[in-house]
Amino acid sequence: MFRKIGILGAGSWATAIAVLLAHKGFSVRMWSILPDQVDEIKQTRENSSFLPGVTIPPGVEVLVDMERTLEDVDVVIYGVPSHAFRQVFRQSMPYLPGSAVLVNVAKGIEEDSLCRLSQALAQEAGQDMLERFVVLSGPSHAEEVGRLVPTAVVASSYCLSSAEYVQDLFMCQYFRVYTNPDVTGIELGGALKNIIALGTGVADGLGYGDNTKAALMTRGLAEISRLGFSMGANPLTFAGLAGVGDLIVTCTSMHSRNRRAGIAIGKGKSIDEALAEVKMVVEGVRTTRAAYSLARRYGVEMPITEQIYRVLEEGLSPDIAVNNLMTRSKTHEMEEVARVAGAMGKIRFSE
Amino acid sequence: MFRKIGILGAGSWATAIAVLLAHKGFSVRMWSILPDQVDEIKQTRENSSFLPGVTIPPGVEVLVDMERTLEDVDVVIYGVPSHAFRQVFRQSMPYLPGSAVLVNVAKGIEEDSLCRLSQALAQEAGQDMLERFVVLSGPSHAEEVGRLVPTAVVASSYCLSSAEYVQDLFMCQYFRVYTNPDVTGIELGGALKNIIALGTGVADGLGYGDNTKAALMTRGLAEISRLGFSMGANPLTFAGLAGVGDLIVTCTSMHSRNRRAGIAIGKGKSIDEALAEVKMVVEGVRTTRAAYSLARRYGVEMPITEQIYRVLEEGLSPDIAVNNLMTRSKTHEMEEVARVAGAMGKIRFSE
Repeated sequence: MFRKIGILGAGSWATAIAVLLAHKGFSVRMWSILPDQVDEIKQTRENSSFLPGVTIPPGVEVLVDMERTLEDVDVVIYGVPSHAFRQVFRQSMPYLPGSAVLVNVAKGIEEDSLCRLSQALAQEAGQDMLERFVVLSGPSHAEEVGRLVPTAVVASSYCLSSAEYVQDLFMCQYFRVYTNPDVTGIELGGALKNIIALGTGVADGLGYGDNTKAALMTRGLAEISRLGFSMGANPLTFAGLAGVGDLIVTCTSMHSRNRRAGIAIGKGKSIDEALAEVKMVVEGVRTTRAAYSLARRYGVEMPITEQIYRVLEEGLSPDIAVNNLMTRSKTHEMEEVARVAGAMGKIRFSE
Repeated sequence: MFRKIGILGAGSWATAIAVLLAHKGFSVRMWSILPDQVDEIKQTRENSSFLPGVTIPPGVEVLVDMERTLEDVDVVIYGVPSHAFRQVFRQSMPYLPGSAVLVNVAKGIEEDSLCRLSQALAQEAGQDMLERFVVLSGPSHAEEVGRLVPTAVVASSYCLSSAEYVQDLFMCQYFRVYTNPDVTGIELGGALKNIIALGTGVADGLGYGDNTKAALMTRGLAEISRLGFSMGANPLTFAGLAGVGDLIVTCTSMHSRNRRAGIAIGKGKSIDEALAEVKMVVEGVRTTRAAYSLARRYGVEMPITEQIYRVLEEGLSPDIAVNNLMTRSKTHEMEEVARVAGAMGKIRFSE
């Protein structure tokens, strides 16, 4: 069934996954583009830059050679930043075993093409490839999975047997995997939640309370669901692990770079100062631009995204942005989803 | 339209509402069953036991006389603990002005009757009374509303004009009100979230991480939605302010008594010790028993509620309860909602 697994990328999440799968007894090869990182892991059995404190077991072999990494594997896991996904996938294509299942764990939307990552894959390799493509998403800080903290995620594929295959691959005592056939919703949830994490960070930085944060998260989820629904997703997916679950973990943890950047902005830092302070890639900035474009393309109202866009791109003051949100004209709670669903007659459900 | 408002109850939430409505210029009377409390507020213009630090403006009159409190009012707000709602409503019936709108802000399910509070009201006063009955719910710590922190809630009624009337009554710069016609879902969301707050508290007390908590909250929301759907609620309501919004605020704040009781249990305290430590009423214990009964009556699987019930009522060890949840047979993410909805052909939407 599955014995050999190739992982492309060696960041914190890729490393935590390698450790989990090696603990389950599989033979794992992990590829890094950085020879120094490969040498360090080989010598110390630790990925000190990305997952400090976690011992990488002997079952994980680390390589700089992508071809060798993917030789005879049953599963290929893409664990690179979302903006690098298409490039790394393209690079891997010549080496993919004919029947290997492909798993993506990156979360994002391509900024220029506005493609979800499964769409990027289909553009590169054809629609048929989607049959054996699975997205793994949900609330899963790598640091905690590395410490064997109980975690639950979702495996999503157009093909149920591929999703169930990945469910069996990962599932263990401390890592629970659900399946969900709504690839569009799962991909959008994972990407768009970073916008709301930025926004709740701004509210935290401004000194607002738990009420404000819960309101932003809930109404943020509502506008993500509206956009998702217009793009063909099942709105209930956003109430699941890759939607609200991931949103909760991202908006309430100091592990989140998006949230930390938002806090700095709320405290009065400029965007550049905030990004410099966080030091790492802040996916939410890119994603805000992509979502702003998608909202226009699909004609969906996304007031929180719009205010964050104006803060990031047009220098709007954060407290005015919050004020704009609080003083919009009064409305019903689920007006747009309800209207669209009414127009469709009924809603699509999984199965 | 609305000029005079009567509030029954003088706890923290009732007091915060009184202050908000007086700030909006309305004439507010607040009733307390405790003469000492009435005297204290009259003298100090502060409710020091329940909402310390917030000045109660002159527009709020405090009384022990319920009849006088409700004389000529346009709106009656019930702000008593949920287990006292039926009794206080019954007591108020002789004094209700014929056209007054009734607003309930308590959250709970009656333990013996398993009634939602609107059902209790209809039993006491007839179905017609529901036309002018509105539930106000959502993520709203009284302490924060008292400090004018931006907050968003939902007004829900079977009658849209009643809901919109209450929306207009409360809406202001820092308090945003949405409407939602799904009274069943709004009432269940507010009550059942306390079970999950207990459960996430237990996980926190056991030392688990953000991943575990997000998973419990998300899967808890899923089982609340399943029960709600079986009871006639719109599952999307649980993705709204009175569902996930209130869940977030309750599970992440130390203001929550339910969460604090759960933490004590997770740290190894007995149930009695935990409840003694928190000192106040822990609604979640009662609600867990009610939900456990409802799940059996409606034939709905609620694994988290069941494990918490077994911890509270049967002395199950909390770490075994978590282990039981993580090692259930594998499943799809939205299996039951999907199945029920499939059987119904389509799902009900608001409007």
